[in-house]
Amino acid sequence: MTYLFNNPTQFADELVEGFAAAHRNTIQRVNGGVIRRYKAKPGQAVVVIGGGSGHYPAFGGFVGQGLAHGAALGNVFAAPSAQQICQIAQAVDVGGGILFCYANYAGDVLNFEQAQAQLRAQGIDVRSVVVTDDIASAAVVEQHKRRGIAGTLPVFKAAAVAADVGKPLDEVVRIATEAKDRVRSLGVAFSGCTLPGANKPLFEVADGKIEVGMGIHGEPGLYRVDAPSADGLAEMLVEKLLAEIPLSIGSLSGTRVGVILNGLGAVKYEELFVIYRKIDQLLTQDGLIIVEPVVDELITSFDMAGVSLTLYWLNDELEQTWIAAADTPAFHRGNIAPAVQSEENIAVAVQPSHDKQPLKIGSADSQAAAKVVLAALEAARDAIELQQEVLGRLDAIAGDGDHGIGMQRGLTAAVEAARAALDAQAGAGTVLTAAGDAWSDRAGGTSGALWGVILRNLGNALRDEAKPDAATVAIGVAAALDAVSNLGKAQPGDKTLVDVLHPFAQALAAGAAQNLTVAAAWTMAAHIADEAAQATRNLMPRIGRARPHAEKSIGTPDPGAVSMALIIRAADKIVRKHCL
Amino acid sequence: MTYLFNNPTQFADELVEGFAAAHRNTIQRVNGGVIRRYKAKPGQAVVVIGGGSGHYPAFGGFVGQGLAHGAALGNVFAAPSAQQICQIAQAVDVGGGILFCYANYAGDVLNFEQAQAQLRAQGIDVRSVVVTDDIASAAVVEQHKRRGIAGTLPVFKAAAVAADVGKPLDEVVRIATEAKDRVRSLGVAFSGCTLPGANKPLFEVADGKIEVGMGIHGEPGLYRVDAPSADGLAEMLVEKLLAEIPLSIGSLSGTRVGVILNGLGAVKYEELFVIYRKIDQLLTQDGLIIVEPVVDELITSFDMAGVSLTLYWLNDELEQTWIAAADTPAFHRGNIAPAVQSEENIAVAVQPSHDKQPLKIGSADSQAAAKVVLAALEAARDAIELQQEVLGRLDAIAGDGDHGIGMQRGLTAAVEAARAALDAQAGAGTVLTAAGDAWSDRAGGTSGALWGVILRNLGNALRDEAKPDAATVAIGVAAALDAVSNLGKAQPGDKTLVDVLHPFAQALAAGAAQNLTVAAAWTMAAHIADEAAQATRNLMPRIGRARPHAEKSIGTPDPGAVSMALIIRAADKIVRKHCL
Repeated sequence: MTYLFNNPTQFADELVEGFAAAHRNTIQRVNGGVIRRYKAKPGQAVVVIGGGSGHYPAFGGFVGQGLAHGAALGNVFAAPSAQQICQIAQAVDVGGGILFCYANYAGDVLNFEQAQAQLRAQGIDVRSVVVTDDIASAAVVEQHKRRGIAGTLPVFKAAAVAADVGKPLDEVVRIATEAKDRVRSLGVAFSGCTLPGANKPLFEVADGKIEVGMGIHGEPGLYRVDAPSADGLAEMLVEKLLAEIPLSIGSLSGTRVGVILNGLGAVKYEELFVIYRKIDQLLTQDGLIIVEPVVDELITSFDMAGVSLTLYWLNDELEQTWIAAADTPAFHRGNIAPAVQSEENIAVAVQPSHDKQPLKIGSADSQAAAKVVLAALEAARDAIELQQEVLGRLDAIAGDGDHGIGMQRGLTAAVEAARAALDAQAGAGTVLTAAGDAWSDRAGGTSGALWGVILRNLGNALRDEAKPDAATVAIGVAAALDAVSNLGKAQPGDKTLVDVLHPFAQALAAGAAQNLTVAAAWTMAAHIADEAAQATRNLMPRIGRARPHAEKSIGTPDPGAVSMALIIRAADKIVRKHCL
Repeated sequence: MTYLFNNPTQFADELVEGFAAAHRNTIQRVNGGVIRRYKAKPGQAVVVIGGGSGHYPAFGGFVGQGLAHGAALGNVFAAPSAQQICQIAQAVDVGGGILFCYANYAGDVLNFEQAQAQLRAQGIDVRSVVVTDDIASAAVVEQHKRRGIAGTLPVFKAAAVAADVGKPLDEVVRIATEAKDRVRSLGVAFSGCTLPGANKPLFEVADGKIEVGMGIHGEPGLYRVDAPSADGLAEMLVEKLLAEIPLSIGSLSGTRVGVILNGLGAVKYEELFVIYRKIDQLLTQDGLIIVEPVVDELITSFDMAGVSLTLYWLNDELEQTWIAAADTPAFHRGNIAPAVQSEENIAVAVQPSHDKQPLKIGSADSQAAAKVVLAALEAARDAIELQQEVLGRLDAIAGDGDHGIGMQRGLTAAVEAARAALDAQAGAGTVLTAAGDAWSDRAGGTSGALWGVILRNLGNALRDEAKPDAATVAIGVAAALDAVSNLGKAQPGDKTLVDVLHPFAQALAAGAAQNLTVAAAWTMAAHIADEAAQATRNLMPRIGRARPHAEKSIGTPDPGAVSMALIIRAADKIVRKHCL
């Protein structure tokens, strides 16, 4: 259970506010997340991390001296938006370039890559190192598909220490990459977690069983076995991790290794110490020399019960970064010289330009259409809200369980932005663009990035003058399809929302060619969208870098496809009602 | 659930072993618990803390620079034994006297007081400050009856900082006492916890409810209410704590206060930050100046869900100790100068004198009686094992839930020691004395201290020569009753094991006066003991300093009385079988 919350949709914002208040001497909240209270040295490289909320100390708890310079903090179990990441990057940039370092999940990859492209377009040197330490999530020859879990910490630390001693960005990237290549983790889960406001767990593990290799969002593991004793589990984890030693390591004897035993939330400290006792014995028996072990909660999932073991195969250079001092809200090591403190170097939040240009006023026709757009978004929001938990569950089968929450949050923000734009007399095109911007910014995750693109493309086509006809709508949807395919790199048949958007766009175009009204064309296409969404249950998914276990979703429809069909259906009722 | 354990009775030992291995650079394990790796300055005062296991970071996680010098670590939810406390005290003593600082629970008081008396008898200056911060556990006019919870941390810290800057023990005591008088906490619970190896929770809170003021071992709270929102709970906690401000505080405005928001285990960091957000707002609105807040897990109960809020009303002197640097396994603040490190000042464990004098060989008659003693202890162990969870549950009603586990552990140790003594040809008296020593040492808690005294007194009466007759046994039991009454300060009618031991001793004496055999006298007395144990359900308990809510146990028998009757009954079968 999650016990303490107010409005669940405000949970992520409120936790960052409380976190920043509790640690106001060392960190500060800025738009998008948190940053160190004191700026880095002018001209040095800086390290920006980030990810979804619900995993504290990851990721906000790792901002501070000796670790990250800033963290973009997404919603619960959802990647931060590209806008958030850009805001954090701009807040910590001191001219020496930026390393993005994050765990390999679809939404994080999508949004960090978008942010990287945006910042590079501004002339800022941005690189990325994506952590892939979870050996359960793909085979060793496909390391790039593996998820990142507690092995993120040593990679963050290697990068940050290198940056803070003044190494150039190229070197920071090299060292972080080396760290990434030398860190391996394996986790097991005993139970799932219940998100704030939900009335049942997002996923479950049968009583008395453990799921070996289950992800921190409930991504299915390798197999289930009867729950072993603490010592038995220690033996299993050590054996599997020792079976995959980096090639550069010769004999185990005398090899130096960092060790992280991470608790996922409800497995408590004493239990961690009991199992660590055996892990320490086993590694030592093998001749390994354990360097500065960490036994703690580092990357959690609310009250999920489970543990992960990380082995970090050190070389001399990495060992220096591993034992280096650090002082952050959640990670401490040794004594680090206090940051140079003066009023001048207190990092100042970059304020987003909320006071943009006043919105363009739309024509009466377009304002009328904009009212329908708002009503359609409201209907879509209500439809998704009803299905939010179902969507989360579908997503947890192959992804990270954030789909329902992310859609709900994005649509809520989209409705608010659309209403504000309509109040400012904007036309349909501007209302859609504003809604798309708000959606991607506030929702983050994969769906936020994609839906932001969809609404913006539709808005660009509808414009703010003419009453939209079926051809205009069809052109906008076709443009959205193109843009989404480019961004997400998905083709029809890959078991994504493209499997709905593609036939929907085709049907709309066909309807427009027959000179149907918008309502008639949309209704026809909506039926096709429904069928297409259900048909995704039969598709063999494309196994991508961040969906390593998507094949487990065979037999269930894709949550992104389902939510797209739900939104199209909700909009259909509104479009027909208004006889558009 | 507790998921990771091996043999549950080994849990506490194994966790200390793993904990010490994970933190071997800064702490070390010695008999009885853990101590700082480097010795304190010769002649300074030192601070020894301690308590039951299952509450990490309390208490082992608070040993290190800037905090405690050593911690005696008891079994799960059970006070450390007086022997353990003495071992820790001797390991850290550097000639400047010792402050015992601990939370106010019956077992801790009993064992720390015993240890204090033993050390004073050796000429060591030992004082005690008992923390009583839990305002729910007794009225303000009876502060000495209140339990200690997360408010222990600032008191430990005040004492340790004073000791480490070289203040004499008198001053350390004064400052710790001042800290104790200025710290107030209030907790709520959402759910209970399940101890290692148990198949159901030790206590429960109804779904959707919170129990205001519930103790960390399930001691009942003030009342139950529907679970509020995070903000609602923040308002309730702040309101109740502000209703009890120390007299020395005038206006709230401008008053400086340390704040601790403690999670009990399953309420996770993000939730703590959400509620801290509101607490910070409310205190700031009242004009209070928050100094170095701590939002973390500090005193837990496995996977119990709950939080406590602590307000620490600072004065200038205490503020210096509160903001002072510290570096322990679980608590960090600022930068503390590294300990002076040399091979010479590595603290060395004081080895207990396991190689005592060889045991005195008993007569053939007494060795025969010793075999019966061993068989009776084995039968008692089995009987308690069957009832272990029931006893824990009875204890959780008014006490701290450790009774069943403690009895099981103590009897297991007693049986082992008795067998070893018998193997060494000891007589009945020596076997009983060895069993009593092992029981109190290994079990700790209240019951460990009392049963150690009982067996030792019985052993002193039986001696190692003559075959024990009923008169001898009756004399031994009467002596045990006297000693237990002195130690625990309980009278018949106070709803303790004395309510069984007293009529049992009387009946044995009556049987002996009638020249009955041991078996006949014991059987008769055992019936009386059974009835007396059941009759404790009707007794109004004495409300003592560490049993503030004992009145809630009206209607249920006392666990100590029940376990005594169980042991007497188990021994009865053995005594009769051997026709003693």
